[in-house]
Amino acid sequence: MLEEKLKAVVRDIPDFPQPGVVFKDITPILKNATLCSEITDAFVEYVKSLDVQVIAGIESRGFLFGMMLANKLGIPFIPIRKQGKLPAHTIAESYKLEYGQATIEIHEDAFLPGTKVLIHDDLLATGGTVVAAAKLIEKLGGEVAGFSFVINLEFLKGEGRLHRFSNNVISLVDYV
Amino acid sequence: MLEEKLKAVVRDIPDFPQPGVVFKDITPILKNATLCSEITDAFVEYVKSLDVQVIAGIESRGFLFGMMLANKLGIPFIPIRKQGKLPAHTIAESYKLEYGQATIEIHEDAFLPGTKVLIHDDLLATGGTVVAAAKLIEKLGGEVAGFSFVINLEFLKGEGRLHRFSNNVISLVDYV
Repeated sequence: MLEEKLKAVVRDIPDFPQPGVVFKDITPILKNATLCSEITDAFVEYVKSLDVQVIAGIESRGFLFGMMLANKLGIPFIPIRKQGKLPAHTIAESYKLEYGQATIEIHEDAFLPGTKVLIHDDLLATGGTVVAAAKLIEKLGGEVAGFSFVINLEFLKGEGRLHRFSNNVISLVDYV
Repeated sequence: MLEEKLKAVVRDIPDFPQPGVVFKDITPILKNATLCSEITDAFVEYVKSLDVQVIAGIESRGFLFGMMLANKLGIPFIPIRKQGKLPAHTIAESYKLEYGQATIEIHEDAFLPGTKVLIHDDLLATGGTVVAAAKLIEKLGGEVAGFSFVINLEFLKGEGRLHRFSNNVISLVDYV
């Protein structure tokens, strides 16, 4: 089972990025090329029924498997980045953090209206960033075809916030 | 020719990130999955003679083709990230920017001493970040087996700063 394999490799880092939080570190996964291929293949298997036309990956860790997935599907990869990083004309969306706020951006010409977009990130937590990403896709006239994550921290209940965009929420490892 | 194809797709963005600078935007490349595969294959072709054991990719854009390259070679991918982003024990290296400085980090357990590491980023400019990355590799007892870039801004003369680590500097598009 892929989930068991991944759980055996994902590393718990206590008190990161702040006291009381246990961070799920995926970097040990990246050391295992076979496992990385299995992850990509599992995403492909889920996604191929969704008629996805573009993969949008969220900076930075969403670039890792987002790029691999897009390549395997033979479709475009679109980066969603932190404010000020994308060089051409962008639209922006801000969202709340525990303290303060953050802003992400997408290129205005990332895809044509009507395009079916899968949003990818390595990990789903409370969903703030991903909801902002989905809003960016819809602002550009795209259709959110689904979401894919390596890890879903289910106990943070981020998934419920995504269903108004799409019910297709794929994760390979769930922590309940 | 791959270089001609890439030059036809890379987009010039004037005055980004500051007035007077022409930024080379690779995001149009990412829309073309076939071209992305050709880039990865070209890196594999160059790298396979170097006996590389690990690919280290520099956040964020170095994650894109760094991950693809590592996967194609069937070897580990190691992220080098901005300060405060890697969750486990890290070592850090700071370098000068035009105004101020920046710091990058690598996990202490990224690889074993003696490992041959290829450093990858999307673009070589003045080389500040890449030199810092090479120092991190050597601090961990690794051997810098080479460097790979999609783009080399040759006129900024970054390549000369890399030769004290390795003479194997690979780029697919050069702007002279």
